[in-house]
Amino acid sequence: MPETLIKVDLSKPAPSNEMVHNRWHPDIPMACWVQPGDDFVLETYDWTGGYIKNNDSADDVRDIDLTTVHYLSGPVGVRGAMPGDLLVVELLDVGAKSDSLWGFNGFFSKKNGGGFLTEHFPQAQKSIWDFHGLFTSSRHVPGVNFAGLIHPGLIGCLPDQKMLDMWNARELAFIATDPERVPPLAAPPSAATAHLGKLKGAGREKAAAEGARTVPPREHGGNCDIKDLSRGSKIFFPVYVEGAGLSVGDLHFSQGDGEITFCGAIEMAGWVHMRVSILKGGMALYGIKNPIFKPSPITPQYNDYLIFEGISVDEQGKQHYLDVHVAYRQACLNAIEYLKKFGYSAAQAHSILGVAPVQGHISGVVDIPNACATLWLPTQIFDFDINPSAAGPVKHLDGSVQMPLSPDLR
Amino acid sequence: MPETLIKVDLSKPAPSNEMVHNRWHPDIPMACWVQPGDDFVLETYDWTGGYIKNNDSADDVRDIDLTTVHYLSGPVGVRGAMPGDLLVVELLDVGAKSDSLWGFNGFFSKKNGGGFLTEHFPQAQKSIWDFHGLFTSSRHVPGVNFAGLIHPGLIGCLPDQKMLDMWNARELAFIATDPERVPPLAAPPSAATAHLGKLKGAGREKAAAEGARTVPPREHGGNCDIKDLSRGSKIFFPVYVEGAGLSVGDLHFSQGDGEITFCGAIEMAGWVHMRVSILKGGMALYGIKNPIFKPSPITPQYNDYLIFEGISVDEQGKQHYLDVHVAYRQACLNAIEYLKKFGYSAAQAHSILGVAPVQGHISGVVDIPNACATLWLPTQIFDFDINPSAAGPVKHLDGSVQMPLSPDLR
Amino acid sequence: MPETLIKVDLSKPAPSNEMVHNRWHPDIPMACWVQPGDDFVLETYDWTGGYIKNNDSADDVRDIDLTTVHYLSGPVGVRGAMPGDLLVVELLDVGAKSDSLWGFNGFFSKKNGGGFLTEHFPQAQKSIWDFHGLFTSSRHVPGVNFAGLIHPGLIGCLPDQKMLDMWNARELAFIATDPERVPPLAAPPSAATAHLGKLKGAGREKAAAEGARTVPPREHGGNCDIKDLSRGSKIFFPVYVEGAGLSVGDLHFSQGDGEITFCGAIEMAGWVHMRVSILKGGMALYGIKNPIFKPSPITPQYNDYLIFEGISVDEQGKQHYLDVHVAYRQACLNAIEYLKKFGYSAAQAHSILGVAPVQGHISGVVDIPNACATLWLPTQIFDFDINPSAAGPVKHLDGSVQMPLSPDLR
Amino acid sequence: MPETLIKVDLSKPAPSNEMVHNRWHPDIPMACWVQPGDDFVLETYDWTGGYIKNNDSADDVRDIDLTTVHYLSGPVGVRGAMPGDLLVVELLDVGAKSDSLWGFNGFFSKKNGGGFLTEHFPQAQKSIWDFHGLFTSSRHVPGVNFAGLIHPGLIGCLPDQKMLDMWNARELAFIATDPERVPPLAAPPSAATAHLGKLKGAGREKAAAEGARTVPPREHGGNCDIKDLSRGSKIFFPVYVEGAGLSVGDLHFSQGDGEITFCGAIEMAGWVHMRVSILKGGMALYGIKNPIFKPSPITPQYNDYLIFEGISVDEQGKQHYLDVHVAYRQACLNAIEYLKKFGYSAAQAHSILGVAPVQGHISGVVDIPNACATLWLPTQIFDFDINPSAAGPVKHLDGSVQMPLSPDLR
Repeated sequence: MPETLIKVDLSKPAPSNEMVHNRWHPDIPMACWVQPGDDFVLETYDWTGGYIKNNDSADDVRDIDLTTVHYLSGPVGVRGAMPGDLLVVELLDVGAKSDSLWGFNGFFSKKNGGGFLTEHFPQAQKSIWDFHGLFTSSRHVPGVNFAGLIHPGLIGCLPDQKMLDMWNARELAFIATDPERVPPLAAPPSAATAHLGKLKGAGREKAAAEGARTVPPREHGGNCDIKDLSRGSKIFFPVYVEGAGLSVGDLHFSQGDGEITFCGAIEMAGWVHMRVSILKGGMALYGIKNPIFKPSPITPQYNDYLIFEGISVDEQGKQHYLDVHVAYRQACLNAIEYLKKFGYSAAQAHSILGVAPVQGHISGVVDIPNACATLWLPTQIFDFDINPSAAGPVKHLDGSVQMPLSPDLR
Repeated sequence: MPETLIKVDLSKPAPSNEMVHNRWHPDIPMACWVQPGDDFVLETYDWTGGYIKNNDSADDVRDIDLTTVHYLSGPVGVRGAMPGDLLVVELLDVGAKSDSLWGFNGFFSKKNGGGFLTEHFPQAQKSIWDFHGLFTSSRHVPGVNFAGLIHPGLIGCLPDQKMLDMWNARELAFIATDPERVPPLAAPPSAATAHLGKLKGAGREKAAAEGARTVPPREHGGNCDIKDLSRGSKIFFPVYVEGAGLSVGDLHFSQGDGEITFCGAIEMAGWVHMRVSILKGGMALYGIKNPIFKPSPITPQYNDYLIFEGISVDEQGKQHYLDVHVAYRQACLNAIEYLKKFGYSAAQAHSILGVAPVQGHISGVVDIPNACATLWLPTQIFDFDINPSAAGPVKHLDGSVQMPLSPDLR
Repeated sequence: MPETLIKVDLSKPAPSNEMVHNRWHPDIPMACWVQPGDDFVLETYDWTGGYIKNNDSADDVRDIDLTTVHYLSGPVGVRGAMPGDLLVVELLDVGAKSDSLWGFNGFFSKKNGGGFLTEHFPQAQKSIWDFHGLFTSSRHVPGVNFAGLIHPGLIGCLPDQKMLDMWNARELAFIATDPERVPPLAAPPSAATAHLGKLKGAGREKAAAEGARTVPPREHGGNCDIKDLSRGSKIFFPVYVEGAGLSVGDLHFSQGDGEITFCGAIEMAGWVHMRVSILKGGMALYGIKNPIFKPSPITPQYNDYLIFEGISVDEQGKQHYLDVHVAYRQACLNAIEYLKKFGYSAAQAHSILGVAPVQGHISGVVDIPNACATLWLPTQIFDFDINPSAAGPVKHLDGSVQMPLSPDLR
Repeated sequence: MPETLIKVDLSKPAPSNEMVHNRWHPDIPMACWVQPGDDFVLETYDWTGGYIKNNDSADDVRDIDLTTVHYLSGPVGVRGAMPGDLLVVELLDVGAKSDSLWGFNGFFSKKNGGGFLTEHFPQAQKSIWDFHGLFTSSRHVPGVNFAGLIHPGLIGCLPDQKMLDMWNARELAFIATDPERVPPLAAPPSAATAHLGKLKGAGREKAAAEGARTVPPREHGGNCDIKDLSRGSKIFFPVYVEGAGLSVGDLHFSQGDGEITFCGAIEMAGWVHMRVSILKGGMALYGIKNPIFKPSPITPQYNDYLIFEGISVDEQGKQHYLDVHVAYRQACLNAIEYLKKFGYSAAQAHSILGVAPVQGHISGVVDIPNACATLWLPTQIFDFDINPSAAGPVKHLDGSVQMPLSPDLR
């Protein structure tokens, strides 16, 4: 049995746990140390530290304070890891906690973070997904059932002070270009809700004030939300501080490319079983800036896809220049429109695109002025046939089941 | 034997062929007519109509007049197809012409179209790829050999006048926002080099003046450059005019997601064997705006990938807001840097990303301010092991073979 | 949390557990009952009930009494299931017991069961395989590491008395054709070691005397050892008795097609999470005699194979008539010979073929007099390159690590 | 353009072509010579040399003289190849002849060769399959349409005299064990219909008298009928004579594992584009007795299977000992019974199993007395859903279309 180095008790507040943290800072003390070659288990909270509940109201999605996220387990120190090395992490397995076999997906209110399609889904909504072994289904989104592509949404090593300073400079300057924007252009440090593991005293104050928020992916990896960085994969992380300081959290039972629903994938509390080793001097040897990885030999094999195209002309007909973000949004909206013909509400269709193992491909990025993106919808996850046919679509859902929605309070 | 309805003679200029055209306009006469259920063959020029030659100079890539492209075979009229229908096209097979078993890939000069990585590759370069049955390799890019994911880069139906007018209005307004830009923001109509098939007289003048360029993908599909829309796939195209008017061209022996090299994939002259049928009223039945498709059951199965991450901070360290285009560019640059460690020139590495069956995934698009994109490089296409190892990379290439480069003339 | 309906305590003898049994008989009382639609967990012993230990001696493999196997968990009664129905079983997940993260593989002595290649491996040998999350490796077989294709080797419903009688008649008549054979032609009832769950008294005596041994696969499924009947798959079992009486055991962490090592795959104690439902009258509706199933969407994706051919001429040069068994044996021997060139002992190579996700295909069965079978060896499970090359094979192993062997005592 | 070294004219009798042969003998002169590294094309007759016609009668299947087959193109001499080497053959592509875009499948009369299921299908039947690009369908077997897994059924190098003598000794001795059997136990030399390429005079008489029939697979490969040895694969053949003497024929557009219909797969005339090279001394270096190969990266990806089990108890209830041949026959019969519920005749169902990319796995071969084999039927090749459901099977076919049958003449 591999040792469980970090445990989380879902009945207690995440900030009470000194082995977790919610900011990136080089001064966060290692929660524990391992040797290269060790394999071990880390338990994790869901990204909100348990704020979102398994119920039929979206109030929690509406009301959450997003400065509190994400609660990460770690940092784990690896003996001998030095700046410039690559930390090799094998995700031997990832799973849900046995006392919490469910996850959530939702859309934030436009006033509280919004999301990829926030103009179309401006209010808080939620769906709950139950896990049945390798599979998941939802009482709020009928007619789909699929195997989980289980992965950590967030994993990476501690930055050093220089990199942290660069992040802060870069993002604060960016916010300054439009400081009143809602949602803001980036997530600046926020001392009030910072949780820095074992760090105490003055060092804690400094780190809380300047600790980088965990929201975006950055050079070290972090919140990449790459669905294919799943259990069984092998990742090569840049090391910036002695001991590396590996942290992980934000586990997903499944997610579509883009994590378009933002709140988020199928979010869950769980555990990660991993093995670490060191590739000395690997950053220079291989010219590595961002992490690289090998995908898992075990992933769900849904290979019958219906593919939707989108181009970088937005839904108001406005032209954008080779903008893959806009193009993918169009592909998503096209897929939602299609799924509505089978009886899904727009919200349910949106949710499916956020949680199912949907692929999002960058198909063409050079044919001015339009980028082309494609959304690959696996047909085998549906209980019924969603392929087009001469007979036209059959409404398999009667609308009696809907996703909870919580209107903004004012 | 299916009938070859359109033939092209590679020894004659493309504009001399009345069964091809290089603009989109509803007045282009059908080159031929078929019945629903028919299967038939269309031959096509390469997208440049034969301008790029199988030699060791990139002069032709430097000098090409890009207002001449793309030469498409068609339009094919389908009896009974009416606006609002979906035209179902099965790509029964696609291949190179037997007297032209090679293709080209290149980078345009920044002064003549540029491309995705034009800041890094500002001058014209070219590589020639020979076809050996299902496989291809290049005398200019050693050490790679892979099966073709053969597909048409460009396929779609004629727009009606209303859609054409909308395209022109949209793109001309867009150009007007920065009319001096090089390269321009979009490709406006260009009467001088317009080729409109059988259209003659005053109608020809009108169509030449307002015919939409074939460069970007648009609502009808068109130049989508989707590598997975490959032989064996089945596509559902919106129909805008009576008879549909299906045209195809710009065949690729292989391409990576994004067609990042712009000039372009492995470009070839060839033929398309297809069958057409009609799904009556399909646009409204299924809520279709852009084409949708089912991928082929026959595609190269390279499943051992090395995956590179990129985020939307550009190579100058500048922050961009959830910009997948920038993120994918970083992933590409990361992969190029990696491949250089094995002895490839940057240009050769760039070319591999443009032509091999590389996947580009939209991995995260909601974690402000950084989008995350991933580039999936198939390791099985290389003659040697490109995985990272403790021993460090081995230089398998000595630099003696390089891609032709033609400096700008002034 | 699904309920664990049957628990096994690995520290206690299997025959002391009334919820397990090692014979097939309609009179075995249901261990528990469930409703259609229920999902639940059954724990299981390894097939030998814990006889084989995690150590470095093959004495236990040599000495085991094979009349004691297999210890199955069940039977589970399903309310409403009637003869003629199909019992639909979804294997939601299967895993090792958390206090027993290892498995064994071995060859029986020719004097105690033998095996597929017993002429070549006539003495008892054993290898131990440790589980690291989704992966396994062995201290006795270096250089291989692979993801488990986890499955129950044995699963099926209780026969009715008529089917049981038919089995006994058929197999006893078969034994009678060569009663002195070693090993015997079939495994007859053996009352002394019969374990019949909760059955007591005279009924127990009768059932012990006539209960069918669990060794062979039969009409109901049973000991099929089909590696692809793995977690995530969905099986349709014929029902012969009221309540169906589903039993399961003989879990494998991984196995190659054929289970050629007989003792057996990577054998483990573990648990099965399953959901059951009923397809009324399904046997007649679909003409079902043996179980049918749908494979899992989640299986290891090793797709780079080296394939070995074998024909039905045996290793003494003797001709057999379209005998796939002989042909597959030759393919296996060919693969063993090949692997020896890389430094493996014959026993280690044999073990790899027994435990890795090796495919065995029936390639040609009509070209008199030779059947052709192929063995597909996944190359990606090896730490080194096993493909043929002009340079010849490299000995990656120095022979210092060997599999334990226990000679026959006399 | 690769050179076509051997051409076949389908309008002329195969025996008139000196570049083909239908026996294995070391004295057959090389039809042509190539250098290592060359790639070239060989055209081939269908295996019967054009005897079977594209019509709606099975008379030709009933009446064919099976001593005339198979017409192979070659032998091709490879400069420098010596006994003990491995001849590396890359199947760069394989296709049908453009003037013959169809193939046939059939069952021989039990009196003329029979087949795997000859007791159930004792009379001659035939189905014709048309090729539509990458796909095939049949006017005699409605409701299925699938991509071809195109491959040569027969390929290998010339034996030397010693190996030839061994083959003849082995097979003649085998026939002698039951010389009156119908069909015979093996196919002995048959001088009357021998065709030995360019060989003339007394040498021809000798070779005709002792030339091995091409029917069975043997040590050199030969008539293996391995569906996965398809275009894009790479094969390593043992070399027995100077120049290797590679011959190929018996092309199949598609075939299921086992080629159970015997006459045969979807048989076609066509061409093979290949490249050859030499691995010096490879037989000893790698311990090679039979050919080994790497499968193609391009094969049809139908991954949704319905799997049928069979055990080695035959349809009369007779017990066989670990007989995979019997077990696979039962799995096939189970699948046929199942398909009949959807409206197929038994013959049509049988034909589908013979021609579609059906997998046949050797699942368990050690659990006395029953072998277990599985037949994997791809569900995606059918126009309708063939999965089991609570509603029961729907008859999609009304029986109005049947396969031609030609009763024995007496």
